Amino acid sequence: MTSPVPAGADRRIFIDKQSPKAYHALVQTSEAVRGVAAEAGLDRVLVELVNLRVSQVNGCAYCLQVHTRAALRAGDTPQRLGVLAAWRETELFTPAERAALALAEATTAAADSAAQDIAYAAARAVLTDDQIAAVIWVTVTINAFNRVSIMSRHPVHPEQ
Amino acid sequence: MTSPVPAGADRRIFIDKQSPKAYHALVQTSEAVRGVAAEAGLDRVLVELVNLRVSQVNGCAYCLQVHTRAALRAGDTPQRLGVLAAWRETELFTPAERAALALAEATTAAADSAAQDIAYAAARAVLTDDQIAAVIWVTVTINAFNRVSIMSRHPVHPEQ
Amino acid sequence: MTSPVPAGADRRIFIDKQSPKAYHALVQTSEAVRGVAAEAGLDRVLVELVNLRVSQVNGCAYCLQVHTRAALRAGDTPQRLGVLAAWRETELFTPAERAALALAEATTAAADSAAQDIAYAAARAVLTDDQIAAVIWVTVTINAFNRVSIMSRHPVHPEQ
Amino acid sequence: MTSPVPAGADRRIFIDKQSPKAYHALVQTSEAVRGVAAEAGLDRVLVELVNLRVSQVNGCAYCLQVHTRAALRAGDTPQRLGVLAAWRETELFTPAERAALALAEATTAAADSAAQDIAYAAARAVLTDDQIAAVIWVTVTINAFNRVSIMSRHPVHPEQ
Amino acid sequence: MTSPVPAGADRRIFIDKQSPKAYHALVQTSEAVRGVAAEAGLDRVLVELVNLRVSQVNGCAYCLQVHTRAALRAGDTPQRLGVLAAWRETELFTPAERAALALAEATTAAADSAAQDIAYAAARAVLTDDQIAAVIWVTVTINAFNRVSIMSRHPVHPEQ
Amino acid sequence: MTSPVPAGADRRIFIDKQSPKAYHALVQTSEAVRGVAAEAGLDRVLVELVNLRVSQVNGCAYCLQVHTRAALRAGDTPQRLGVLAAWRETELFTPAERAALALAEATTAAADSAAQDIAYAAARAVLTDDQIAAVIWVTVTINAFNRVSIMSRHPVHPEQ
Repeated sequence: MTSPVPAGADRRIFIDKQSPKAYHALVQTSEAVRGVAAEAGLDRVLVELVNLRVSQVNGCAYCLQVHTRAALRAGDTPQRLGVLAAWRETELFTPAERAALALAEATTAAADSAAQDIAYAAARAVLTDDQIAAVIWVTVTINAFNRVSIMSRHPVHPEQ
Repeated sequence: MTSPVPAGADRRIFIDKQSPKAYHALVQTSEAVRGVAAEAGLDRVLVELVNLRVSQVNGCAYCLQVHTRAALRAGDTPQRLGVLAAWRETELFTPAERAALALAEATTAAADSAAQDIAYAAARAVLTDDQIAAVIWVTVTINAFNRVSIMSRHPVHPEQ
Repeated sequence: MTSPVPAGADRRIFIDKQSPKAYHALVQTSEAVRGVAAEAGLDRVLVELVNLRVSQVNGCAYCLQVHTRAALRAGDTPQRLGVLAAWRETELFTPAERAALALAEATTAAADSAAQDIAYAAARAVLTDDQIAAVIWVTVTINAFNRVSIMSRHPVHPEQ
Repeated sequence: MTSPVPAGADRRIFIDKQSPKAYHALVQTSEAVRGVAAEAGLDRVLVELVNLRVSQVNGCAYCLQVHTRAALRAGDTPQRLGVLAAWRETELFTPAERAALALAEATTAAADSAAQDIAYAAARAVLTDDQIAAVIWVTVTINAFNRVSIMSRHPVHPEQ
Repeated sequence: MTSPVPAGADRRIFIDKQSPKAYHALVQTSEAVRGVAAEAGLDRVLVELVNLRVSQVNGCAYCLQVHTRAALRAGDTPQRLGVLAAWRETELFTPAERAALALAEATTAAADSAAQDIAYAAARAVLTDDQIAAVIWVTVTINAFNRVSIMSRHPVHPEQ
Repeated sequence: MTSPVPAGADRRIFIDKQSPKAYHALVQTSEAVRGVAAEAGLDRVLVELVNLRVSQVNGCAYCLQVHTRAALRAGDTPQRLGVLAAWRETELFTPAERAALALAEATTAAADSAAQDIAYAAARAVLTDDQIAAVIWVTVTINAFNRVSIMSRHPVHPEQ
């Protein structure tokens, strides 16, 4: 691989290429979770907002590029995506989206059980059991992909 | 004002309306800083990236909406803005933008002098003295507006 | 400038000298805010406590020197200033001072909206609308000066 | 389920039971990763140390119980497990274990790219490419199970 | 002293050897506190759980080794010790142990007065005044020994 | 005790009164440490700066009052004490004071071994072995008193 890397970057192993069996199984998990989310009636836009917000928190550039594209394709707007980092302070997101984003942040911050109690109780008031489970599964999966891409330093190329 | 507010929000004083003289003076400062940035040869897109990144760190929804619009108008793309939260890990931003973003984050994290030393040294290698001063001034100013809007809880309405 | 600097310090641009128009406008803002605070009936000592506490949190040595002098001149005591860093745990500060200090800390910690909700509600019970706006404006302004001095590394010379 | 829960615990959805397809796929991933680790020549004890340390950082009681049992069965001692939380400061762990633990902590702290650079460079000196990939995969997987169990609040019963 | 030290460790002064009078007085304090705990009716296992949890938080390997041994000798099990880092999320610890662990964590996090208020109120419901005082004294003392051993980098040798 | 307490404060046990034997032993330790510091040739002002800075970090109002008084009595000035919270960024403190303050902060932040390595190496260049040991002992002791007073909520009365 000879593509340019950002300043200070040393070469990394692409762990998806290095261990294709593990990566393949994670992709299968992701597809199962996509099915779980669809069956629970979660909107595609909501799922992509969760993917984006978790990727912001974890700092995964590659996943932000992939899921910005997916969110726009699913019909979300550059304006809403631009405000997502401060979603709590706006009227732009629906109650279901707000409940899902809070639950996703709390799941990502694994050690913060107080935040989890608050987010969980709020989610109960807005989402079904299937939807709560699905949002947590989406969050678990994007957390996994974030770590794969961050540790592999998957490159982000400009769109053409 | 009777518009709906997010869950848990109580009414806040709009400190810009409550103290118009102070607000007017801050707007004047902002205009002076805009002049400083232009004279130093800072690109409008770079300035908006700084405004956006600081507003992400401080969690100012109102400022994110305003400056997302400004950045798009200045020619930046939804894709680059989507990746901004993890700018360090990508090839999407120019050396000048990277230096400015690092300096802006370090200036915002006022108490972290180690981060400031690193960002400052990196900026020295890429930006002129006037540009370094201008980036810090832009950061100081957006930090001020972030606090005005956050504490006033300025509402964010959907675009039409 | 040839004065000695602390260990590890490299030379910095004084951004107030580099961009005098921006600095002049910020000083004007500061004077407007001083007027706002006086008109709201905020005591000079309370204003200096806010300036000092924010400067402690942000770690601005230059501002701590300037405002320690101002607080002593306004009639505060070395003992109260000595305890200021733990003001929450004492009986030394008045209810108005306590409300202002909590609001100032919450405004400074821009991203912590939970702390803002608590501090805001507490301030409502003790301060007028004009005073709340004034305390936030004082905090916004000292945050700006802190960042100017920290990034310029304004030197602190012993008093004679 | 009628078993007692800790103070403050409300009932949670077991997301593994709620979405068995997703859980099944994650278990398959875990088995693929186990194979990857074995082929890379990673010792079972090393793998369990990674599972335990990540579960300590994330605060997953259920996973700590499961992997304490597994680590003891694999031949590790109560004494080493007792010191694991401060592994960096001891001579009790081998260079390979130390490299793996540092890499696991850095992978878990997704947003800390400076820690990742340091841990990655240290791992390069001690582990093969296959082993580095395997340690990251083990860490990605235990992070996923941690979040499943934490958000489901899987109960931990005393051993008999 | 020629014993091997962990990677990156430079030689440190053993401050207990360097200042034997101070160390002797601290050991006397520790013995007084042991008496206070016994008179208050605190179980030896509970005291060792406090010693271990504080040593985990502070990252003292030497103290973890010493008190893992003491806890096992006092009758606690490798399984409970393995779960201790996530004690809040389990049913494995008694109400008195849970109250003591919360109080110990809050005492160790000296600056977090909100956590102290919560832990103190919870302890009131379960422990006597003498027991609360004793748990705090145990925590103060192990915090002191943690700092002595961490700064001296007391070595941890494998058990034989 | 009927004196007013700050908002939100409930009554606390004074653990020094509740367990006088433990407190007496801690006072003896403190006196031994005072001797160690004097024998090592540490200036009284330097010792009080360490006591004050640690008490700022831990947020102990009672200790800040006691040691502000002691520092002024030892000859330090309100101006230097006013800047202490940002000591790193000034020329007001001597090399020995700077080395001691860095070592004290690193000892107080028990879990931050990277900060300890840096502070320790810096202290080596300026302080003798006896002085390093003494500074650590002073820090260990004030950390203990901070926790005693914070958890007892020792009241701070205005000076007359």
